[in-house]
Amino acid sequence: MIKSDMELKRKKALKKVTDAIELHNGTTILSTGITGDDARLAKAAVDGGARMLEPNHPALALARGYKGVNNMHDAEMVRHEISLDQMLESTSGVRNVVGQDIFITVGVPGGFTEVMPVELSDEDFKKISLSGADGLHTHKSSLEDLKIWVEKAHRYGLLVDAYIGHPNDLHTFGIAAETPEDVSIVAKKLEEIGVDMIGLMTGMSYEGVKAGEIPEIIEKRVRALVSSVSVPTLAEGGINKANFHRFKELGINILVVGTSIDNVVTKAASDTVKKFLER
Amino acid sequence: MIKSDMELKRKKALKKVTDAIELHNGTTILSTGITGDDARLAKAAVDGGARMLEPNHPALALARGYKGVNNMHDAEMVRHEISLDQMLESTSGVRNVVGQDIFITVGVPGGFTEVMPVELSDEDFKKISLSGADGLHTHKSSLEDLKIWVEKAHRYGLLVDAYIGHPNDLHTFGIAAETPEDVSIVAKKLEEIGVDMIGLMTGMSYEGVKAGEIPEIIEKRVRALVSSVSVPTLAEGGINKANFHRFKELGINILVVGTSIDNVVTKAASDTVKKFLER
Repeated sequence: MIKSDMELKRKKALKKVTDAIELHNGTTILSTGITGDDARLAKAAVDGGARMLEPNHPALALARGYKGVNNMHDAEMVRHEISLDQMLESTSGVRNVVGQDIFITVGVPGGFTEVMPVELSDEDFKKISLSGADGLHTHKSSLEDLKIWVEKAHRYGLLVDAYIGHPNDLHTFGIAAETPEDVSIVAKKLEEIGVDMIGLMTGMSYEGVKAGEIPEIIEKRVRALVSSVSVPTLAEGGINKANFHRFKELGINILVVGTSIDNVVTKAASDTVKKFLER
Repeated sequence: MIKSDMELKRKKALKKVTDAIELHNGTTILSTGITGDDARLAKAAVDGGARMLEPNHPALALARGYKGVNNMHDAEMVRHEISLDQMLESTSGVRNVVGQDIFITVGVPGGFTEVMPVELSDEDFKKISLSGADGLHTHKSSLEDLKIWVEKAHRYGLLVDAYIGHPNDLHTFGIAAETPEDVSIVAKKLEEIGVDMIGLMTGMSYEGVKAGEIPEIIEKRVRALVSSVSVPTLAEGGINKANFHRFKELGINILVVGTSIDNVVTKAASDTVKKFLER
Protein backbone atom coordinates (compact mmCIF):
# COMPACT_ATOMS: atom_id res chain seq x y z
CA MET A 1 0.00 0.00 0.00
CA ILE A 2 1.37 3.40 -1.06
CA LYS A 3 0.58 5.91 1.66
CA SER A 4 2.66 9.07 1.34
CA ASP A 5 2.14 9.39 -2.42
CA MET A 6 -1.60 9.06 -1.93
CA GLU A 7 -1.55 11.77 0.72
CA LEU A 8 0.45 13.95 -1.64
CA LYS A 9 -2.11 13.38 -4.38
CA ARG A 10 -4.90 14.48 -2.04
CA LYS A 11 -2.93 17.52 -0.95
CA LYS A 12 -2.43 18.56 -4.57
CA ALA A 13 -6.13 18.06 -5.23
CA LEU A 14 -7.05 20.27 -2.28
CA LYS A 15 -4.68 22.95 -3.55
CA LYS A 16 -6.53 22.97 -6.89
CA VAL A 17 -9.74 23.66 -4.94
CA THR A 18 -8.35 26.39 -2.70
CA ASP A 19 -6.59 28.01 -5.68
CA ALA A 20 -9.87 28.07 -7.63
CA ILE A 21 -11.71 29.65 -4.69
CA GLU A 22 -8.98 32.26 -4.27
CA LEU A 23 -8.79 32.99 -8.00
CA HIS A 24 -12.52 33.68 -8.02
CA ASN A 25 -12.47 35.86 -4.90
CA GLY A 26 -14.00 33.45 -2.44
CA THR A 27 -16.60 31.73 -4.60
CA THR A 28 -15.90 29.53 -7.60
CA ILE A 29 -18.18 27.20 -9.52
CA LEU A 30 -18.19 23.44 -9.97
CA SER A 31 -19.38 22.93 -13.53
CA THR A 32 -21.46 19.79 -14.00
CA GLY A 33 -24.27 18.37 -16.16
CA ILE A 34 -23.43 18.55 -19.84
CA THR A 35 -20.11 20.31 -19.07
CA GLY A 36 -19.02 17.57 -16.68
CA ASP A 37 -18.76 14.50 -18.86
CA ASP A 38 -18.57 15.54 -22.51
CA ALA A 39 -14.93 16.45 -23.21
CA ARG A 40 -15.96 19.04 -25.82
CA LEU A 41 -18.17 20.89 -23.36
CA ALA A 42 -15.89 20.36 -20.38
CA LYS A 43 -13.23 22.14 -22.42
CA ALA A 44 -15.71 24.91 -23.25
CA ALA A 45 -16.47 25.34 -19.54
CA VAL A 46 -12.77 25.56 -18.75
CA ASP A 47 -12.32 28.04 -21.61
CA GLY A 48 -15.02 30.08 -19.86
CA GLY A 49 -13.04 30.05 -16.63
CA ALA A 50 -14.26 26.97 -14.74
CA ARG A 51 -11.53 25.34 -12.62
CA MET A 52 -13.67 22.56 -11.17
CA LEU A 53 -15.64 19.92 -13.07
CA GLU A 54 -18.00 17.16 -11.99
CA PRO A 55 -18.82 14.23 -14.25
CA ASN A 56 -21.49 12.11 -12.58
CA HIS A 57 -23.46 8.97 -13.31
CA PRO A 58 -27.01 10.39 -13.65
CA ALA A 59 -25.71 12.95 -16.17
CA LEU A 60 -23.92 10.17 -18.06
CA ALA A 61 -27.18 8.21 -18.21
CA LEU A 62 -28.62 11.25 -20.03
CA ALA A 63 -25.56 11.67 -22.25
CA ARG A 64 -25.76 8.08 -23.40
CA GLY A 65 -29.54 7.97 -23.70
CA TYR A 66 -29.43 5.04 -21.31
CA LYS A 67 -32.85 3.32 -21.37
CA GLY A 68 -34.18 6.41 -23.09
CA VAL A 69 -34.04 8.69 -20.05
CA ASN A 70 -34.20 12.36 -21.01
CA ASN A 71 -34.66 14.20 -17.71
CA MET A 72 -32.80 14.25 -14.40
CA HIS A 73 -35.68 12.73 -12.46
CA ASP A 74 -35.74 9.60 -14.64
CA ALA A 75 -31.95 9.50 -14.75
CA GLU A 76 -31.80 9.19 -10.95
CA MET A 77 -33.84 5.98 -11.23
CA VAL A 78 -31.35 4.19 -13.50
CA ARG A 79 -28.05 5.88 -12.64
CA HIS A 80 -26.84 2.88 -10.59
CA GLU A 81 -26.80 0.80 -13.80
CA ILE A 82 -24.15 3.01 -15.43
CA SER A 83 -20.89 1.11 -15.11
CA LEU A 84 -17.87 2.37 -13.24
CA ASP A 85 -15.86 1.85 -16.43
CA GLN A 86 -18.18 4.17 -18.36
CA MET A 87 -17.67 6.85 -15.70
CA LEU A 88 -13.93 6.42 -15.73
CA GLU A 89 -13.71 6.53 -19.53
CA SER A 90 -15.51 9.84 -19.34
CA THR A 91 -13.32 11.11 -16.47
CA SER A 92 -10.07 10.18 -18.26
CA GLY A 93 -11.28 11.80 -21.46
CA VAL A 94 -12.14 15.04 -19.71
CA ARG A 95 -8.81 14.96 -17.91
CA ASN A 96 -6.97 14.43 -21.23
CA VAL A 97 -8.53 17.53 -22.67
CA VAL A 98 -8.55 19.98 -19.72
CA GLY A 99 -5.08 19.22 -18.37
CA GLN A 100 -3.77 18.55 -14.86
CA ASP A 101 -4.60 21.86 -13.18
CA ILE A 102 -8.36 21.47 -13.26
CA PHE A 103 -10.06 19.80 -10.28
CA ILE A 104 -12.29 16.86 -11.23
CA THR A 105 -14.65 15.25 -8.73
CA VAL A 106 -16.55 12.28 -10.08
CA GLY A 107 -19.92 10.82 -9.12
CA VAL A 108 -19.92 7.04 -9.53
CA PRO A 109 -22.57 4.33 -9.07
CA GLY A 110 -22.57 3.54 -5.37
CA GLY A 111 -21.43 7.00 -4.34
CA PHE A 112 -25.00 8.20 -3.92
CA THR A 113 -27.82 6.50 -2.04
CA GLU A 114 -28.81 4.48 -5.07
CA VAL A 115 -32.20 2.92 -5.92
CA MET A 116 -30.22 -0.33 -5.81
CA PRO A 117 -27.22 -0.32 -3.44
CA VAL A 118 -23.91 -0.69 -5.30
CA GLU A 119 -20.79 -1.74 -3.41
CA LEU A 120 -17.33 -0.76 -4.61
CA SER A 121 -14.19 -2.78 -3.96
CA ASP A 122 -10.80 -1.37 -3.01
CA GLU A 123 -9.73 -2.14 -6.57
CA ASP A 124 -12.55 0.11 -7.81
CA PHE A 125 -11.38 3.03 -5.65
CA LYS A 126 -7.89 2.51 -7.03
CA LYS A 127 -9.24 2.63 -10.59
CA ILE A 128 -11.11 5.85 -9.85
CA SER A 129 -7.94 7.39 -8.54
CA LEU A 130 -5.92 6.24 -11.57
CA SER A 131 -8.58 7.56 -14.01
CA GLY A 132 -7.43 11.09 -13.28
CA ALA A 133 -10.11 12.04 -10.76
CA ASP A 134 -9.08 14.33 -7.89
CA GLY A 135 -12.14 13.66 -5.83
CA LEU A 136 -15.28 11.67 -5.26
CA HIS A 137 -18.60 13.46 -5.50
CA THR A 138 -20.89 11.69 -3.02
CA HIS A 139 -24.52 11.93 -1.95
CA LYS A 140 -24.70 9.40 0.87
CA SER A 141 -27.58 9.51 3.33
CA SER A 142 -25.95 8.18 6.49
CA LEU A 143 -22.78 9.11 8.32
CA GLU A 144 -22.03 5.43 8.74
CA ASP A 145 -21.93 4.70 4.99
CA LEU A 146 -20.20 7.97 4.24
CA LYS A 147 -17.44 7.23 6.76
CA ILE A 148 -16.50 4.04 4.91
CA TRP A 149 -16.30 5.98 1.64
CA VAL A 150 -14.20 8.73 3.14
CA GLU A 151 -11.70 6.20 4.51
CA LYS A 152 -11.44 4.33 1.24
CA ALA A 153 -11.27 7.49 -0.86
CA HIS A 154 -8.51 8.95 1.29
CA ARG A 155 -6.56 5.71 1.14
CA TYR A 156 -6.49 6.13 -2.64
CA GLY A 157 -5.66 9.82 -2.67
CA LEU A 158 -9.14 11.12 -3.42
CA LEU A 159 -10.89 14.07 -1.78
CA VAL A 160 -14.54 13.64 -0.82
CA ASP A 161 -17.36 16.14 -1.18
CA ALA A 162 -20.53 15.22 0.71
CA TYR A 163 -23.87 16.92 1.21
CA ILE A 164 -26.48 17.83 3.78
CA GLY A 165 -30.13 17.48 2.76
CA HIS A 166 -33.56 17.84 4.30
CA PRO A 167 -35.68 14.89 5.58
CA ASN A 168 -38.47 15.87 3.15
CA ASP A 169 -36.28 15.98 0.05
CA LEU A 170 -37.86 14.33 -3.00
CA HIS A 171 -34.53 12.70 -3.86
CA THR A 172 -32.18 11.81 -1.04
CA PHE A 173 -28.95 13.64 -1.79
CA GLY A 174 -27.44 14.03 1.64
CA ILE A 175 -27.44 13.47 5.38
CA ALA A 176 -30.78 14.72 6.67
CA ALA A 177 -30.85 17.90 8.75
CA GLU A 178 -34.25 19.39 9.55
CA THR A 179 -33.39 22.76 11.11
CA PRO A 180 -30.50 25.21 10.64
CA GLU A 181 -29.23 23.98 14.01
CA ASP A 182 -29.27 20.43 12.65
CA VAL A 183 -27.36 21.65 9.57
CA SER A 184 -24.68 22.99 11.88
CA ILE A 185 -24.49 19.75 13.88
CA VAL A 186 -24.35 17.54 10.77
CA ALA A 187 -21.77 19.80 9.11
CA LYS A 188 -19.48 19.47 12.10
CA LYS A 189 -19.90 15.70 12.10
CA LEU A 190 -19.01 15.59 8.41
CA GLU A 191 -15.89 17.62 9.07
CA GLU A 192 -15.05 15.28 11.95
CA ILE A 193 -15.14 12.15 9.81
CA GLY A 194 -12.82 13.80 7.30
CA VAL A 195 -15.10 15.07 4.51
CA ASP A 196 -12.94 17.49 2.52
CA MET A 197 -15.71 19.74 1.16
CA ILE A 198 -19.16 20.03 2.69
CA GLY A 199 -22.19 20.90 0.63
CA LEU A 200 -25.78 21.89 1.22
CA MET A 201 -28.65 20.82 -1.04
CA THR A 202 -30.45 24.06 -1.80
CA GLY A 203 -32.98 23.42 -4.46
CA MET A 204 -34.66 20.12 -5.00
CA SER A 205 -37.15 20.07 -2.15
CA TYR A 206 -38.11 23.65 -1.48
CA GLU A 207 -40.44 26.20 -3.00
CA GLY A 208 -37.70 26.80 -5.51
CA VAL A 209 -34.97 29.32 -5.86
CA LYS A 210 -36.39 31.40 -8.65
CA ALA A 211 -35.84 35.10 -8.20
CA GLY A 212 -32.70 36.99 -7.21
CA GLU A 213 -33.60 36.34 -3.59
CA ILE A 214 -33.13 33.06 -1.80
CA PRO A 215 -35.92 31.84 0.52
CA GLU A 216 -35.19 32.74 4.12
CA ILE A 217 -35.05 29.14 5.27
CA ILE A 218 -32.32 28.38 2.72
CA GLU A 219 -30.37 31.45 3.75
CA LYS A 220 -30.48 30.29 7.36
CA ARG A 221 -29.28 26.84 6.41
CA VAL A 222 -26.48 28.27 4.26
CA ARG A 223 -25.37 30.52 7.13
CA ALA A 224 -25.45 27.57 9.52
CA LEU A 225 -23.18 25.57 7.19
CA VAL A 226 -20.73 28.37 6.44
CA SER A 227 -20.32 29.33 10.10
CA SER A 228 -19.83 25.77 11.36
CA VAL A 229 -16.93 24.38 9.34
CA SER A 230 -13.52 25.45 8.13
CA VAL A 231 -13.33 23.22 5.01
CA PRO A 232 -14.58 24.59 1.67
CA THR A 233 -18.38 24.70 1.39
CA LEU A 234 -20.64 23.94 -1.57
CA ALA A 235 -24.24 24.65 -2.52
CA GLU A 236 -26.09 22.48 -5.02
CA GLY A 237 -29.56 22.67 -6.52
CA GLY A 238 -31.48 25.51 -8.07
CA ILE A 239 -28.51 27.83 -8.48
CA ASN A 240 -29.08 30.13 -11.42
CA LYS A 241 -28.14 33.47 -12.91
CA ALA A 242 -30.73 35.26 -10.79
CA ASN A 243 -29.60 34.03 -7.38
CA PHE A 244 -25.93 33.11 -7.54
CA HIS A 245 -24.73 36.54 -6.38
CA ARG A 246 -26.63 36.09 -3.13
CA PHE A 247 -24.94 32.71 -2.57
CA LYS A 248 -21.59 34.46 -3.00
CA GLU A 249 -22.59 37.09 -0.45
CA LEU A 250 -23.49 34.35 2.00
CA GLY A 251 -19.96 33.01 1.74
CA ILE A 252 -20.42 29.68 -0.03
CA ASN A 253 -17.09 28.73 -1.62
CA ILE A 254 -18.29 26.53 -4.47
CA LEU A 255 -21.53 26.78 -6.43
CA VAL A 256 -22.48 23.56 -8.17
CA VAL A 257 -24.04 24.56 -11.48
CA GLY A 258 -25.52 22.01 -13.87
CA THR A 259 -29.08 22.48 -15.12
CA SER A 260 -28.65 26.21 -15.47
CA ILE A 261 -25.81 25.70 -17.99
CA ASP A 262 -27.48 22.68 -19.64
CA ASN A 263 -30.60 24.69 -20.41
CA VAL A 264 -28.64 27.41 -22.19
CA VAL A 265 -26.56 24.89 -24.14
CA THR A 266 -29.44 22.70 -25.31
CA LYS A 267 -31.44 25.81 -26.26
CA ALA A 268 -28.47 27.02 -28.31
CA ALA A 269 -28.45 23.71 -30.19
CA SER A 270 -32.22 23.79 -30.82
CA ASP A 271 -32.21 27.42 -31.91
CA THR A 272 -29.29 26.93 -34.31
CA VAL A 273 -30.96 23.95 -35.95
CA LYS A 274 -34.15 26.01 -36.29
CA LYS A 275 -32.17 28.74 -38.08
CA PHE A 276 -30.87 26.27 -40.64
CA LEU A 277 -34.37 25.01 -41.34
CA GLU A 278 -35.84 28.46 -41.91
CA ARG A 279 -36.96 29.13 -45.46
CA MET B 1 -30.14 -14.79 -44.12
CA ILE B 2 -33.20 -12.55 -43.81
CA LYS B 3 -33.71 -10.73 -47.09
CA SER B 4 -37.19 -9.23 -47.37
CA ASP B 5 -37.18 -7.81 -43.86
CA MET B 6 -33.82 -6.17 -44.51
CA GLU B 7 -35.17 -4.63 -47.72
CA LEU B 8 -38.18 -3.40 -45.80
CA LYS B 9 -35.92 -1.83 -43.18
CA ARG B 10 -34.01 0.02 -45.90
CA LYS B 11 -37.24 1.16 -47.54
CA LYS B 12 -38.48 2.57 -44.25
CA ALA B 13 -35.15 4.32 -43.75
CA LEU B 14 -35.38 5.91 -47.21
CA LYS B 15 -38.89 7.08 -46.42
CA LYS B 16 -37.62 8.90 -43.35
CA VAL B 17 -35.15 10.72 -45.61
CA THR B 18 -37.63 11.65 -48.32
CA ASP B 19 -40.20 12.70 -45.70
CA ALA B 20 -37.63 14.99 -44.05
CA ILE B 21 -36.73 16.56 -47.40
CA GLU B 22 -40.40 17.08 -48.22
CA LEU B 23 -41.23 18.46 -44.77
CA HIS B 24 -38.48 21.05 -45.17
CA ASN B 25 -39.46 22.04 -48.71
CA GLY B 26 -36.71 20.36 -50.64
CA THR B 27 -33.76 20.87 -48.31
CA THR B 28 -33.38 19.42 -44.84
CA ILE B 29 -30.35 19.24 -42.57
CA LEU B 30 -28.32 16.32 -41.26
CA SER B 31 -27.31 17.38 -37.77
CA THR B 32 -23.90 16.09 -36.72
CA GLY B 33 -20.93 16.99 -34.50
CA ILE B 34 -22.00 17.54 -30.92
CA THR B 35 -25.66 16.98 -31.83
CA GLY B 36 -24.92 13.60 -33.43
CA ASP B 37 -23.62 11.49 -30.57
CA ASP B 38 -24.61 13.09 -27.26
CA ALA B 39 -28.19 12.02 -26.55
CA ARG B 40 -28.93 15.28 -24.70
CA LEU B 41 -27.90 17.40 -27.67
CA ALA B 42 -29.31 15.03 -30.29
CA LYS B 43 -32.65 15.51 -28.55
CA ALA B 44 -32.14 19.27 -28.57
CA ALA B 45 -31.47 19.15 -32.33
CA VAL B 46 -34.64 17.14 -32.88
CA ASP B 47 -36.57 19.57 -30.66
CA GLY B 48 -35.30 22.27 -33.02
CA GLY B 49 -36.71 20.42 -36.03
CA ALA B 50 -33.87 18.15 -37.19
CA ARG B 51 -35.12 14.85 -38.68
CA MET B 52 -31.71 13.42 -39.58
CA LEU B 53 -28.77 12.82 -37.25
CA GLU B 54 -25.22 11.63 -37.80
CA PRO B 55 -23.10 10.23 -34.97
CA ASN B 56 -19.59 9.58 -36.27
CA HIS B 57 -16.29 8.29 -34.96
CA PRO B 58 -14.13 11.44 -35.23
CA ALA B 59 -16.77 13.39 -33.32
CA LEU B 60 -16.91 10.64 -30.70
CA ALA B 61 -13.12 10.86 -30.32
CA LEU B 62 -13.69 14.51 -29.39
CA ALA B 63 -16.65 13.73 -27.11
CA ARG B 64 -14.61 11.20 -25.16
CA GLY B 65 -11.42 13.25 -25.12
CA TYR B 66 -9.74 10.27 -26.74
CA LYS B 67 -5.97 10.73 -26.51
CA GLY B 68 -6.64 14.36 -25.65
CA VAL B 69 -7.78 15.40 -29.14
CA ASN B 70 -9.71 18.67 -29.08
CA ASN B 71 -10.09 19.63 -32.73
CA MET B 72 -11.43 17.90 -35.85
CA HIS B 73 -8.05 17.76 -37.55
CA ASP B 74 -6.46 15.78 -34.71
CA ALA B 75 -9.59 13.67 -34.31
CA GLU B 76 -9.27 12.44 -37.91
CA MET B 77 -5.85 11.02 -37.02
CA VAL B 78 -7.12 8.77 -34.22
CA ARG B 79 -10.73 8.13 -35.22
CA HIS B 80 -9.97 4.57 -36.41
CA GLU B 81 -9.12 3.63 -32.81
CA ILE B 82 -12.64 4.37 -31.56
CA SER B 83 -14.32 0.99 -31.19
CA LEU B 84 -17.39 -0.07 -33.10
CA ASP B 85 -19.03 -0.83 -29.73
CA GLN B 86 -18.49 2.75 -28.57
CA MET B 87 -20.17 4.01 -31.77
CA LEU B 88 -23.07 1.64 -31.37
CA GLU B 89 -23.58 2.50 -27.69
CA SER B 90 -23.87 6.10 -28.80
CA THR B 91 -26.19 5.26 -31.71
CA SER B 92 -28.52 3.17 -29.53
CA GLY B 93 -28.62 5.87 -26.90
CA VAL B 94 -29.51 8.55 -29.42
CA ARG B 95 -32.16 6.26 -30.91
CA ASN B 96 -33.63 5.60 -27.44
CA VAL B 97 -34.12 9.29 -26.89
CA VAL B 98 -35.22 10.58 -30.33
CA GLY B 99 -37.62 7.76 -31.21
CA GLN B 100 -38.09 5.71 -34.37
CA ASP B 101 -39.07 8.43 -36.84
CA ILE B 102 -35.71 10.17 -36.92
CA PHE B 103 -33.18 9.04 -39.54
CA ILE B 104 -29.79 8.10 -38.07
CA THR B 105 -26.77 7.48 -40.28
CA VAL B 106 -23.65 6.45 -38.41
CA GLY B 107 -19.98 6.87 -39.24
CA VAL B 108 -17.95 3.92 -37.95
CA PRO B 109 -14.23 3.08 -37.91
CA GLY B 110 -13.52 1.56 -41.34
CA GLY B 111 -16.27 3.49 -43.08
CA PHE B 112 -13.92 6.31 -44.00
CA THR B 113 -10.50 6.03 -45.60
CA GLU B 114 -8.77 5.65 -42.26
CA VAL B 115 -5.18 6.41 -41.32
CA MET B 116 -5.06 2.70 -40.52
CA PRO B 117 -7.41 0.53 -42.60
CA VAL B 118 -10.11 -1.14 -40.49
CA GLU B 119 -12.02 -4.10 -41.86
CA LEU B 120 -15.53 -4.92 -40.69
CA SER B 121 -17.02 -8.42 -40.61
CA ASP B 122 -20.55 -9.33 -41.62
CA GLU B 123 -21.29 -9.70 -37.94
CA ASP B 124 -20.23 -6.06 -37.46
CA PHE B 125 -22.64 -4.86 -40.16
CA LYS B 126 -25.39 -6.82 -38.46
CA LYS B 127 -24.57 -5.18 -35.13
CA ILE B 128 -24.70 -1.74 -36.73
CA SER B 129 -28.10 -2.54 -38.14
CA LEU B 130 -29.37 -3.82 -34.80
CA SER B 131 -28.05 -0.76 -32.94
CA GLY B 132 -30.86 1.29 -34.39
CA ALA B 133 -28.96 2.91 -37.25
CA ASP B 134 -30.85 3.53 -40.50
CA GLY B 135 -27.78 4.16 -42.56
CA LEU B 136 -24.03 4.14 -42.85
CA HIS B 137 -22.24 7.44 -43.26
CA THR B 138 -19.18 6.67 -45.40
CA HIS B 139 -16.19 8.59 -46.75
CA LYS B 140 -14.48 5.99 -48.91
CA SER B 141 -11.94 7.06 -51.52
CA SER B 142 -12.36 4.34 -54.15
CA LEU B 143 -15.39 2.95 -55.93
CA GLU B 144 -13.98 -0.53 -55.39
CA ASP B 145 -13.93 -0.29 -51.58
CA LEU B 146 -17.22 1.59 -51.52
CA LYS B 147 -18.96 -1.11 -53.60
CA ILE B 148 -18.15 -3.75 -50.99
CA TRP B 149 -19.58 -1.52 -48.26
CA VAL B 150 -22.74 -0.80 -50.22
CA GLU B 151 -23.36 -4.51 -50.78
CA LYS B 152 -22.81 -5.41 -47.15
CA ALA B 153 -24.79 -2.44 -45.85
CA HIS B 154 -27.76 -3.26 -48.08
CA ARG B 155 -27.64 -6.91 -47.03
CA TYR B 156 -28.19 -5.71 -43.46
CA GLY B 157 -30.91 -3.19 -44.26
CA LEU B 158 -28.74 -0.07 -44.07
CA LEU B 159 -28.75 2.87 -46.48
CA VAL B 160 -25.39 4.28 -47.57
CA ASP B 161 -24.42 7.91 -48.00
CA ALA B 162 -21.11 8.45 -49.82
CA TYR B 163 -19.20 11.52 -50.94
CA ILE B 164 -17.32 13.07 -53.83
CA GLY B 165 -14.15 14.99 -53.03
CA HIS B 166 -11.37 16.78 -54.83
CA PRO B 167 -7.92 15.27 -55.53
CA ASN B 168 -6.29 18.14 -53.60
CA ASP B 169 -8.40 17.75 -50.47
CA LEU B 170 -6.41 18.01 -47.24
CA HIS B 171 -8.36 15.10 -45.79
CA THR B 172 -9.64 12.43 -48.14
CA PHE B 173 -13.39 12.35 -47.62
CA GLY B 174 -14.61 11.03 -50.93
CA ILE B 175 -14.06 9.70 -54.42
CA ALA B 176 -11.83 12.21 -56.19
CA ALA B 177 -13.37 14.32 -58.98
CA GLU B 178 -11.28 17.18 -60.34
CA THR B 179 -13.71 19.07 -62.58
CA PRO B 180 -17.49 19.59 -62.51
CA GLU B 181 -17.64 17.10 -65.40
CA ASP B 182 -15.79 14.58 -63.24
CA VAL B 183 -18.25 15.25 -60.42
CA SER B 184 -21.06 14.35 -62.78
CA ILE B 185 -19.32 11.15 -63.95
CA VAL B 186 -18.46 10.02 -60.40
CA ALA B 187 -21.96 10.84 -59.14
CA LYS B 188 -23.49 8.63 -61.82
CA LYS B 189 -21.10 5.80 -60.95
CA LEU B 190 -22.04 6.10 -57.27
CA GLU B 191 -25.70 5.91 -58.18
CA GLU B 192 -24.95 2.88 -60.37
CA ILE B 193 -23.32 0.91 -57.55
CA GLY B 194 -26.34 1.58 -55.36
CA VAL B 195 -25.32 4.48 -53.11
CA ASP B 196 -28.58 5.73 -51.59
CA MET B 197 -27.58 9.36 -51.00
CA ILE B 198 -24.75 11.11 -52.79
CA GLY B 199 -22.81 13.95 -51.22
CA LEU B 200 -20.30 16.56 -52.27
CA MET B 201 -17.49 17.77 -50.02
CA THR B 202 -17.80 21.54 -50.18
CA GLY B 203 -15.52 23.03 -47.62
CA MET B 204 -12.37 21.39 -46.43
CA SER B 205 -10.09 22.01 -49.38
CA TYR B 206 -11.14 25.29 -50.92
CA GLU B 207 -10.68 28.95 -50.18
CA GLY B 208 -13.48 28.52 -47.74
CA VAL B 209 -17.16 29.18 -47.80
CA LYS B 210 -17.30 32.28 -45.66
CA ALA B 211 -19.73 34.86 -46.93
CA GLY B 212 -23.31 34.49 -48.13
CA GLU B 213 -21.95 33.59 -51.54
CA ILE B 214 -20.43 30.26 -52.47
CA PRO B 215 -17.26 30.25 -54.63
CA GLU B 216 -18.11 29.74 -58.27
CA ILE B 217 -16.20 26.47 -58.53
CA ILE B 218 -18.25 25.00 -55.69
CA GLU B 219 -21.48 26.18 -57.31
CA LYS B 220 -20.50 24.44 -60.53
CA ARG B 221 -19.69 21.23 -58.70
CA VAL B 222 -22.96 21.39 -56.78
CA ARG B 223 -24.92 21.92 -60.00
CA ALA B 224 -23.09 19.00 -61.61
CA LEU B 225 -24.05 16.72 -58.76
CA VAL B 226 -27.66 17.84 -58.51
CA SER B 227 -28.28 17.52 -62.26
CA SER B 228 -26.66 14.08 -62.59
CA VAL B 229 -28.50 11.86 -60.11
CA SER B 230 -32.01 11.16 -58.94
CA VAL B 231 -31.18 9.99 -55.41
CA PRO B 232 -31.12 12.54 -52.56
CA THR B 233 -28.03 14.76 -52.57
CA LEU B 234 -25.93 16.07 -49.70
CA ALA B 235 -23.37 18.82 -49.20
CA GLU B 236 -20.83 18.67 -46.38
CA GLY B 237 -18.12 21.04 -45.22
CA GLY B 238 -18.16 24.74 -44.50
CA ILE B 239 -21.94 25.10 -44.44
CA ASN B 240 -22.92 27.96 -42.16
CA LYS B 241 -25.65 30.48 -41.45
CA ALA B 242 -24.30 32.83 -44.11
CA ASN B 243 -24.31 30.44 -47.04
CA PHE B 244 -26.91 27.75 -46.43
CA HIS B 245 -29.68 29.58 -48.26
CA ARG B 246 -27.62 29.47 -51.44
CA PHE B 247 -27.16 25.71 -51.10
CA LYS B 248 -30.94 25.43 -50.84
CA GLU B 249 -31.37 27.47 -54.01
CA LEU B 250 -28.94 25.17 -55.80
CA GLY B 251 -31.18 22.24 -54.99
CA ILE B 252 -29.10 20.21 -52.51
CA ASN B 253 -31.49 18.02 -50.51
CA ILE B 254 -29.51 17.56 -47.33
CA LEU B 255 -27.08 19.99 -45.70
CA VAL B 256 -24.66 18.31 -43.34
CA VAL B 257 -24.15 20.75 -40.46
CA GLY B 258 -21.69 20.06 -37.67
CA THR B 259 -19.05 22.66 -36.80
CA SER B 260 -21.48 25.51 -37.31
CA ILE B 261 -23.74 24.15 -34.55
CA ASP B 262 -20.83 23.02 -32.35
CA ASN B 263 -19.36 26.51 -32.30
CA VAL B 264 -22.61 28.06 -31.08
CA VAL B 265 -23.12 25.36 -28.47
CA THR B 266 -19.60 25.44 -27.02
CA LYS B 267 -19.69 29.25 -26.97
CA ALA B 268 -22.97 29.10 -25.06
CA ALA B 269 -21.32 26.86 -22.46
CA SER B 270 -18.26 29.13 -22.13
CA ASP B 271 -20.32 32.30 -21.92
CA THR B 272 -22.65 30.88 -19.28
CA VAL B 273 -19.75 29.77 -17.12
CA LYS B 274 -18.22 33.24 -17.49
CA LYS B 275 -21.48 34.80 -16.25
CA PHE B 276 -21.41 32.70 -13.09
CA LEU B 277 -17.85 33.74 -12.38
CA GLU B 278 -18.52 37.48 -12.73
CA ARG B 279 -18.19 39.47 -9.56
